[in-house]
Amino acid sequence: MPAINRQFLLARRPEGRLRESDFDYREAPVPEPGPGEVLTRTVYLSIDPANRAWMFPDPTYRPPIGLGEVVAGFTLNEVVDSRDARFRPGDLVECEGGWQDYAVLPADALHTLEPRKPLSHWMSVLGVTGKTAYFGMLEVGKIRAGETVLVSAAAGAVGSFAGQIAKLHGCRVLGIAGGPEKCRWLTEELGFDAAIDYQSGDLSERLAACCPEGVDVYFDNVGGAVFQAALFRMKTHGRIVCCGVMSILDTDTPPPRLLGVPGLLAIRRLRLEGFIVLDYYGRRRQAEQALAGWVAEGRLKVREDIIDGLQNAPRALMGQLHGANIGKRMIRVAPEPSGRE
Amino acid sequence: MPAINRQFLLARRPEGRLRESDFDYREAPVPEPGPGEVLTRTVYLSIDPANRAWMFPDPTYRPPIGLGEVVAGFTLNEVVDSRDARFRPGDLVECEGGWQDYAVLPADALHTLEPRKPLSHWMSVLGVTGKTAYFGMLEVGKIRAGETVLVSAAAGAVGSFAGQIAKLHGCRVLGIAGGPEKCRWLTEELGFDAAIDYQSGDLSERLAACCPEGVDVYFDNVGGAVFQAALFRMKTHGRIVCCGVMSILDTDTPPPRLLGVPGLLAIRRLRLEGFIVLDYYGRRRQAEQALAGWVAEGRLKVREDIIDGLQNAPRALMGQLHGANIGKRMIRVAPEPSGRE
Repeated sequence: MPAINRQFLLARRPEGRLRESDFDYREAPVPEPGPGEVLTRTVYLSIDPANRAWMFPDPTYRPPIGLGEVVAGFTLNEVVDSRDARFRPGDLVECEGGWQDYAVLPADALHTLEPRKPLSHWMSVLGVTGKTAYFGMLEVGKIRAGETVLVSAAAGAVGSFAGQIAKLHGCRVLGIAGGPEKCRWLTEELGFDAAIDYQSGDLSERLAACCPEGVDVYFDNVGGAVFQAALFRMKTHGRIVCCGVMSILDTDTPPPRLLGVPGLLAIRRLRLEGFIVLDYYGRRRQAEQALAGWVAEGRLKVREDIIDGLQNAPRALMGQLHGANIGKRMIRVAPEPSGRE
Repeated sequence: MPAINRQFLLARRPEGRLRESDFDYREAPVPEPGPGEVLTRTVYLSIDPANRAWMFPDPTYRPPIGLGEVVAGFTLNEVVDSRDARFRPGDLVECEGGWQDYAVLPADALHTLEPRKPLSHWMSVLGVTGKTAYFGMLEVGKIRAGETVLVSAAAGAVGSFAGQIAKLHGCRVLGIAGGPEKCRWLTEELGFDAAIDYQSGDLSERLAACCPEGVDVYFDNVGGAVFQAALFRMKTHGRIVCCGVMSILDTDTPPPRLLGVPGLLAIRRLRLEGFIVLDYYGRRRQAEQALAGWVAEGRLKVREDIIDGLQNAPRALMGQLHGANIGKRMIRVAPEPSGRE
């Protein structure tokens, strides 16, 4: 066991676009667990746009990351030492371990994971990402077979699962993504009915051409100009699943002026609804079983963008916020444990 | 029976604030019904902000009023002559008779009303107005006892019923209205827990003072700056009922820049939902029975702002769009018929 705990701390509130200088790197001693606590070692660190949102000074659905604090992040960890009877060394847990090698956490903050191959699926399709797509599309969007479903950031982590889940339920699925490579992946590999490259041409016109009769459910991961274009394409009684606002998180350009809210909502009887997957935590097993089943049947494809080395976390997030990834991005902080079996 | 049919036509698309010169007045012959049609005489003409929305060139939930067409409006009419077996002279009907003395309509477009005293209640508490408040608050807002409910244009037609319905269901109800007279009416006569005069002081600060713990349900009749202030006061899992955008309908000032959509929706898991009462037409009897029962029990107060004379319709609408009315505004086009009983 190495004697140090590498950590990234939030050095300052980012202004506009995130920079490496917004982070401090520190090598600290490995902490020791107190009574009821567990020492864990980070295996995978999830890289999510939400990480950037937590850096704003205002609380979101959680307090902001404090200056000088370890950057918060969802992780898959291995238990190293436990002072709680429920956990023992070698256990795999899901937690908010943050951007560091080791985290001491209260036992109540850990959720046990079963070993599986690849273990990384607990970070992607079976993790927060896949469950966000699952509950967002099915519980918030309430998609029905035959409906037209639009997904933005469709080649991203949540978006690629969200679109495939809609396909599995008999919907016509359109994806919005940046660049021809992502668009090809959506239509040729994932089975999307169409993909629109938002970087090329007028988005509103291309949306109108792709879905002349309008959109029943729009799964929004980006906000901003794409949200605006989609809003005006909604059918009467359409639903917008408000999952994220990636396009306006990491910029100092003010978001475009939004038209049609709330006026168009009444005219077209639209429902806009935001959600956080953590609200569905009590039903996580249902989602995990469904998602794992679809993966096993080959009906849900999982693409992971795994970057080795904790030292790459800042650049990984900076890139992701501007579309560098295809599929679920995560950091492999340590090799997958060989398991106790 | 007079030989003429007084009519107001839409002369031009209003630019900014509605003017009398946007209307043409005409005296036309009384029309004759064809097979399957009914000749009706207007008794009450409802004056609604929606009338103004229908004057824009873009369709709303209905086609725009065409230039040179009779201004559209909900009416309570008496059947004068019928070429459909379901109707006979003296019947009372609800319809879209428009801004004129006489309308020939297809029999399928008429809904029979039972005689009642006062008949005007079919235009206010039992009409489109009361039913909008009923379905909006109960079916869209899904209010629960103990919740904090905020209503804008609370001294207006829909707002005054909406707030009272929330009180009847055990909610704490706050109203936003313009001027001390309206605010006094809300708290002293209608039993609102508090009223905020949006014309006096900083609305956001006063909202925060009135409901420091936030709002569960906001019933929005106005859009614009009031919508913005309310949005940031919403509790987690709050709901906004999008009923109207009166504050931005009759002006050439662009609406204020809207912040927090869609971002705040996810953070606070908010639901914004628009509706049109016509979607609930199949359940109208349920609403009418409930509303009539509350009125009979003295638990729902009805205030009507009845203006005599069709010639006053343009000014009545122009005033209403800027808050001139308290309660439900309508035009008495002809005296209430004495009835056939």
